[in-house]
Amino acid sequence: MSQIADVDQQPEMHPQRWGDPARATALPDGARGLVDLVFGAHDTPAVEAPPVPPSQLDPAHLDALAGIVGAEHVLVDDDVRRGRTRGKSTPDLLRARSGDLADAPDVVVRPDGHDQVAAVLAYAVDHHLAVVPYGGGTAVTGGLVAARDGFAGVLSLDLVRMKRLLAVDDVSLTATLEPGLRGPETEALLAEHGLTLGHFPQSFEFASIGGFAATRSSGQSSAGFGRFDAMVVGLRAATPVGDLDWGVAPASAAGPDLRQVLLGSEGAFGVITEITVRVRRLAEIKQYEGWRWASFADGSAAMRTLAQAQLLPTVLRLSDESETAINLADPSAIGGQGDGGCLMVVGHEGTAEQVAARQAAVAAVLAGLGGTALGSEPGEAWAHGRFNAPYLRDSLLDVGVLVETLETATFWSRVPQLYASVKQTLADGLGEGSLVLCHISHVYETGCSLYFTVAAKAAVDPLAQWLVVKDAVGDAIVENGGTITHHHAIGTDHKPWLAAEVGQVGVEVLRGLKRTFDPTGVLNPGVLVP
Amino acid sequence: MSQIADVDQQPEMHPQRWGDPARATALPDGARGLVDLVFGAHDTPAVEAPPVPPSQLDPAHLDALAGIVGAEHVLVDDDVRRGRTRGKSTPDLLRARSGDLADAPDVVVRPDGHDQVAAVLAYAVDHHLAVVPYGGGTAVTGGLVAARDGFAGVLSLDLVRMKRLLAVDDVSLTATLEPGLRGPETEALLAEHGLTLGHFPQSFEFASIGGFAATRSSGQSSAGFGRFDAMVVGLRAATPVGDLDWGVAPASAAGPDLRQVLLGSEGAFGVITEITVRVRRLAEIKQYEGWRWASFADGSAAMRTLAQAQLLPTVLRLSDESETAINLADPSAIGGQGDGGCLMVVGHEGTAEQVAARQAAVAAVLAGLGGTALGSEPGEAWAHGRFNAPYLRDSLLDVGVLVETLETATFWSRVPQLYASVKQTLADGLGEGSLVLCHISHVYETGCSLYFTVAAKAAVDPLAQWLVVKDAVGDAIVENGGTITHHHAIGTDHKPWLAAEVGQVGVEVLRGLKRTFDPTGVLNPGVLVP
Repeated sequence: MSQIADVDQQPEMHPQRWGDPARATALPDGARGLVDLVFGAHDTPAVEAPPVPPSQLDPAHLDALAGIVGAEHVLVDDDVRRGRTRGKSTPDLLRARSGDLADAPDVVVRPDGHDQVAAVLAYAVDHHLAVVPYGGGTAVTGGLVAARDGFAGVLSLDLVRMKRLLAVDDVSLTATLEPGLRGPETEALLAEHGLTLGHFPQSFEFASIGGFAATRSSGQSSAGFGRFDAMVVGLRAATPVGDLDWGVAPASAAGPDLRQVLLGSEGAFGVITEITVRVRRLAEIKQYEGWRWASFADGSAAMRTLAQAQLLPTVLRLSDESETAINLADPSAIGGQGDGGCLMVVGHEGTAEQVAARQAAVAAVLAGLGGTALGSEPGEAWAHGRFNAPYLRDSLLDVGVLVETLETATFWSRVPQLYASVKQTLADGLGEGSLVLCHISHVYETGCSLYFTVAAKAAVDPLAQWLVVKDAVGDAIVENGGTITHHHAIGTDHKPWLAAEVGQVGVEVLRGLKRTFDPTGVLNPGVLVP
Repeated sequence: MSQIADVDQQPEMHPQRWGDPARATALPDGARGLVDLVFGAHDTPAVEAPPVPPSQLDPAHLDALAGIVGAEHVLVDDDVRRGRTRGKSTPDLLRARSGDLADAPDVVVRPDGHDQVAAVLAYAVDHHLAVVPYGGGTAVTGGLVAARDGFAGVLSLDLVRMKRLLAVDDVSLTATLEPGLRGPETEALLAEHGLTLGHFPQSFEFASIGGFAATRSSGQSSAGFGRFDAMVVGLRAATPVGDLDWGVAPASAAGPDLRQVLLGSEGAFGVITEITVRVRRLAEIKQYEGWRWASFADGSAAMRTLAQAQLLPTVLRLSDESETAINLADPSAIGGQGDGGCLMVVGHEGTAEQVAARQAAVAAVLAGLGGTALGSEPGEAWAHGRFNAPYLRDSLLDVGVLVETLETATFWSRVPQLYASVKQTLADGLGEGSLVLCHISHVYETGCSLYFTVAAKAAVDPLAQWLVVKDAVGDAIVENGGTITHHHAIGTDHKPWLAAEVGQVGVEVLRGLKRTFDPTGVLNPGVLVP
């Protein structure tokens, strides 16, 4: 059907920073004052354009791969390989800033469509090339860092040419998408049909549909639209053992739901080439408002009440006292009350009638539970700035402030303990003057996520500084009954805790699946599977 | 916590009939008139108490098993083995009526709790005994018919002693259940806490929690409560390679959702011993009403509109013209209009306020689409008789009328074609005078289920008669893009179509999972895995 046309027109992310270089900004004055107050500023500039290791690939492979995808789509120049090195976690950025691009792929290959993906995979199997599927490059848990030992080379399988909207079923309200489509491209193509996907993670502007599926992403409208895995009704993929095409009905009892095996498989079981998702009619109205709660506990209890009454708005998020006080996106958003408390953002989307009815019902519950309505300003401020935090992280890293995020989820009854433990572990690990902020942005009837943002004065070796803290907080999450990741995936960074979460039988199941799909182990080696 | 006490107090199902013998009824006069009219009655009585083959098990095993579960829970007497032979599909009943109980297990073992299950499994692996997990015995696709070739015997693992409500988390609204609990037992235990599970399949009165999980059951309130697999947040199981305990959060990105591998695994990967489910507060109000539609197409379009507007009631079902005209449960339910059309049942459950708001919103949509409100009588009549159809099947079989059901699901755009094709295939196969009835009782934003009931004059060999038809209709389902089963599972009966649905890679994944969980293949051999 329709597609995003020119693969070379889209903004490339800087290898050491988030997002579109044209949108990078200096640190806002307000934030700099905060930094000075808390930390005392000391800049740590990055090494400019660090060298990438030379491609180790036998040039004979380049010709063969060119025969599959075309010579102009087999790229070995340093700039391209530099841009496909690792993802966008703070450790990734710190390594790149320090000049370490050791994980650069040997070649970047850009297939166009399922058949070329399958052909590249077959070639990689035959010649034992490690294959790293690459979508938006926004991974934050090491999912783009393949093991290279024992392989003839590392091939970055860039899906940038696969940006078609392949089909729209206007009766069933489904759309079939290629994996290289980024968030805004997807919404633009669907909007031509009056439709929306409704998946808006913070990485929305750069992350890809294939990545959403491979990592079980969850977006800021998950209260209303569900997680990405809940939107998927069909998957096509190329694997070393053949093609698969799963999903003939919304739900089935024909054995285990195999779609759920591929969702979250992080490129280790196959390359997802087509994704059929549930879509919805574009909303007529989008309305965001703020609510103030006396405490994080009060606000989270209100979220739980809404979820358990099946009365969720489209967007529902709650900042704890610390995050509310800082409000990185907009320090004025709490309405200048300055009296502590917690900011909740409540968003309603739909027809005018739906929004009016839902807004009234939700507001009645929230007011009844002691929430204070703050009007639309804090909600609209959040909506306006909601994709900007990663840019701010770069600006803070520039001035020596270590910033990183991590997230977990658990059942409601365990939330207070998990929250307290993770927060304490982060504060202890990062030391005096550090900031530990938290919000809840994904809620279910039985539980919710917890998303932490930390800021601390960077040590001489900020990477080592963070890895020690990350290690401790991973243990704290497991010990307090949380999942090691609610929507960032396992990658390589979370592997140490996966066995504790799924047990030895779970580990064996993952290894067995890996053997079935990828007998020679060429797909994203070292990622996900213990 | 609490549990259903006496394992020998619960009604046993008759090996040749559905349900509680005390509730079996003669054919209602109205239905007999119908039968006479359409078919001409000719009774086909069943062989009384047909013999079961002698137990083939080496008696030495009995002592060893008694050492694990207690001698009184290792049973080889004919009555017990007769009652654990196959399930309750019409072919199962026809075989039993004809005196064929060749699939009787050699021994029935009743473990009490996870550890005993694990010990019995370990023993079965060591001595190559086939193990058939047994809950309510309501399987309709051959899931209780294990292959016995090459095994030292077939062991029916009856979970009747595992009926505890192990935990209630009143904050998270979850409950941990043992697999042997039947539907009403579960609801009774939860009601003590003011809670409900909300899972009401037609087999509700006899089917077990473990069976719901192992077969991906879907209940009559699925519009409001979701399918059973959507209710499950945690699973514990014993497998030949060890125990597993999955589910630390409502949702996670820690790789594939392994819970979804065990759900629908039909006892072939492990024995589910504890199931943690989402529960809800007991409804204050339950209100059912009828709506009339000019056609099945109009009614199903209205269902689709509700689903795609996220405005689903708790119960939503629609009978096609044929089923509406017959209305096996209550021929007067359509309100005596007799002018054709289709009956829709709409049920709302919740607080008074929730029900009032939801009822008004749904009714406005339905009226706007051309539906005619029939008031509460048809809805209440449906609710009153909704678990009775299997008893009626026995009464019809008694007088020589072959009755069976089957079901599928697909995306909305394919529903008309799938419906027409299956209906035609059934009518062609069953011949003149047969009845083919259909309803939609499970809806999603992107599609729905189709549930068919057929009645025909029994041939001299009604089993052979049906199997020919089932074969043709399975092909029709696959060819028209439906799933071979929406909520009845694969068992042995649906295996011929599984490869077409999941493809060769899917078959290899299922085989790989089987090898991982059950390397020696003792778990429900021949079931599910191609």
